[in-house]
Amino acid sequence: MAELSDANAQLYESLLDGDHTALARVITKIENRAPGYRDLLAALHAETGTASVVGVTGSPGTGKSTLVDALTKQYREAGETVGVIAVDPSSPYTGGSVLGDRIRMGSTAGDMDVFVRSMSARGRLGGVSMATADAVKALDAFGKDRIIVETVGAGQNEVDIVETAETVAVVVQPGSGDDVQLLKAGILEIGDLFVVNKADKDEAAGTVADLETMIHMDAAPAAGLSAGHHGPNATDSEPAAVDDGGWTPPVIETVATSGEGVDEFRTALDDHRQYLVDSGTGEGRRRRQAETEIRRLLRADVGGLAEEVLDGHGGIEAVASRVARRETDPYTVVGELVDPLESAVEESLATRPEASEK
Amino acid sequence: MAELSDANAQLYESLLDGDHTALARVITKIENRAPGYRDLLAALHAETGTASVVGVTGSPGTGKSTLVDALTKQYREAGETVGVIAVDPSSPYTGGSVLGDRIRMGSTAGDMDVFVRSMSARGRLGGVSMATADAVKALDAFGKDRIIVETVGAGQNEVDIVETAETVAVVVQPGSGDDVQLLKAGILEIGDLFVVNKADKDEAAGTVADLETMIHMDAAPAAGLSAGHHGPNATDSEPAAVDDGGWTPPVIETVATSGEGVDEFRTALDDHRQYLVDSGTGEGRRRRQAETEIRRLLRADVGGLAEEVLDGHGGIEAVASRVARRETDPYTVVGELVDPLESAVEESLATRPEASEK
Repeated sequence: MAELSDANAQLYESLLDGDHTALARVITKIENRAPGYRDLLAALHAETGTASVVGVTGSPGTGKSTLVDALTKQYREAGETVGVIAVDPSSPYTGGSVLGDRIRMGSTAGDMDVFVRSMSARGRLGGVSMATADAVKALDAFGKDRIIVETVGAGQNEVDIVETAETVAVVVQPGSGDDVQLLKAGILEIGDLFVVNKADKDEAAGTVADLETMIHMDAAPAAGLSAGHHGPNATDSEPAAVDDGGWTPPVIETVATSGEGVDEFRTALDDHRQYLVDSGTGEGRRRRQAETEIRRLLRADVGGLAEEVLDGHGGIEAVASRVARRETDPYTVVGELVDPLESAVEESLATRPEASEK
Repeated sequence: MAELSDANAQLYESLLDGDHTALARVITKIENRAPGYRDLLAALHAETGTASVVGVTGSPGTGKSTLVDALTKQYREAGETVGVIAVDPSSPYTGGSVLGDRIRMGSTAGDMDVFVRSMSARGRLGGVSMATADAVKALDAFGKDRIIVETVGAGQNEVDIVETAETVAVVVQPGSGDDVQLLKAGILEIGDLFVVNKADKDEAAGTVADLETMIHMDAAPAAGLSAGHHGPNATDSEPAAVDDGGWTPPVIETVATSGEGVDEFRTALDDHRQYLVDSGTGEGRRRRQAETEIRRLLRADVGGLAEEVLDGHGGIEAVASRVARRETDPYTVVGELVDPLESAVEESLATRPEASEK
C-alpha cells in the first residue's frame, strides 16, 4: 500500500471518523479519478467487508427508486445507517461525472444517516462500473450498515451490478412484458430475488406466476419446485427460498408507494445474505468479484501502456499512415511495439522473489 | 516482416499464383489463428490495395444474400472475379470457426472465380472482425477484383463492417420499420448508400421517402437536398449522389430476385468508389481503418501480456483470493503487476533509435 498524501491522509481519517463531508469528497475523487484516489482506495480496502451490499435493478417505470426509498426507511427505523448509489444512464451528464447528492422526494430525505449519490452511466460504462464498485468501498469503510446500488436495467448495467452486490434484486412491474424481456436479456440468471412491484394491479398474479415458472425452469429440474412465493399475503413461515439444492430466487410482491410487502422484501434480502454465509457461496462470489475488479483494472492500465507505446512511436496516426501506404503492415507494427513489453514481462516474471526461491 | 516458414512460403506463392485451394487454406489459417498466420498476413499486406471492397449489411429477411448473388453475377458477366465473405451470427458454430465454403443457391454457384466463405460471428465479435479484415486481405492479395463482405445487421456487426469496406450498403425492406430501427441503431451514419430491396412491394415508395428524409436531415442542412434517388425507373443522367458538399447517400430500389435495379446498385457502388478517389476521402478512410486494426491488435496482444503477468503471479484466482481475504487490494495488486511493464515501456521508448537521434 502506497503512502497517502497529507490531504488524502486527512480525508481518510475524517471518513473513518464518520464525517459525511469527507465521504462525499472521497466519492467525488473516485468519480473524477483525481490524483491519489488509488492510494486512498488501497487504504480503504482493509476497512471494508462489514456492510451488506444489495443491488436493485429493473426497467424504467417499475418503481425501483420508490422501493429503494421504502427499504431505506425500514432500515433507518431499525436503527441502521444506509448508503445509496444510484447509477442513472439517463442523466444528461457525461462521462460518469458527479451529479451531487440526488434530491429524492422519498421519506428519508434530510436524514443525515442516509447518504444518496447519483452517478451517470453515460459514455464509459466500464468506468462507471469501476467507480460504482469503488464508491461502495468508500461507503463500506465509512461504516454504513446497508449499501444499496440502484441501476436502471439497460443491458450491461444489470450484469455489472453482479460484480458489486452480494444480493441482486430484479424489480418488474405487472403485465409489462418485463418477464419476457428478462429471459431475452439474460437477467433471470443474475436475480437472487425478484420483486413484482405495483402488486395491487390486476395483472400482478399472472406476472408472479410467469416469473416462478421461469425461475423453476431455470433451476435444477428436481429441486425447489415448491419454493419461493412471498407476497404481502404470504402466510407460510418456513424460509421458503432456501432449499437443499441451493438458492431458489423468491418472487416478492410489493406496493412500494404504500409500503406493502417491503417488510417481506427486507426479510428475503436478509435470508439471502444468511444463505451466502451458511452455504459458503458468499466467499466464492467475493472472490469472483475481486477477479473481475483486478482484470478490469489490469486491462485499463495495460491498455494505457499500449497507448503510451503508440504515442512514443509518433502516435497512432503516424503509424497508421505508414500502414495505409503499405510501407509496413499492422502485424509487423504491433509486433515491434509489443516486443519490448514482452521481454520486460518475461524478465520481471523470471526475477520475482517467488520464482527465484524455487 | 518476419521470415515465412517453408510451408507458409509455399502457401503464399500458390495464393499469389491464383490457386483457390491455397486461398481457402490461408483463410482457414486466419480463422484458426494458426501458427505463423501473422507472418503470412504481414507478407500478404504488401500485395493488397487493388480490390474494391464493399460491405453489405441489413436485418435478416431483407434479401441481402440474394442481392449479393445478383451483384456477383453482374460482376462475373463483366469479366471480374469476386470474393464473398459472409459473416453469419446465426451460425451454430461457435468461436468464429470455419463453416467451409457456403453452399449458395444463387446463380453463381459452381463458378470457380467466385469464392464464397462464411464465418460465424458468435462468441468473440472482435475476433470475427479481425478475421474478416484479414480474410479480405487474403482475397485482395489473391487478386479478386471485387470483394463483398455481407453481414447480418445486429448491432456491432454493422459498425465493424465500416472498418473493412470502402463502401457500405445498407439493405432494408419496405414497410418493415427498418428505417426507424436504423435511426435508433446509428446505422444511418455508416451507410454510403441504401438499398430498398423487394421494391415491387406497395410500401416501397414510402420507405424510400422515409429514408431520403432521414438522410437529408442527417446531411449538412444546406447541402444536397436534391440528390440521390436511383431506382429501376430513375432517368436522371447526372451523378446524383455526388455534390459539392460531399457525398449524399443515394437510395436505390431493387428486386434482387428478378435482378431489377441491380444495375443501378452496381453503378452507385462505382460512383462511390470514384468519389472516394476524386475527393481524397478514401485515403483518410483507409488510414482510419488501419488505426482501428492496429489498436485492436495492440489491445489483444497487450491484453495477452496482462494475462501472462497474472499467470506468473499464481493466476487470477490466487491473486483474487488474497484480495477477497483483504490481505491486499486490487489497486495495490495491479500496481505491482503493471510497474515492471511501465518501466520497460519507458526504457524502450527512451532507447529507440529515433529518440536517441534527437
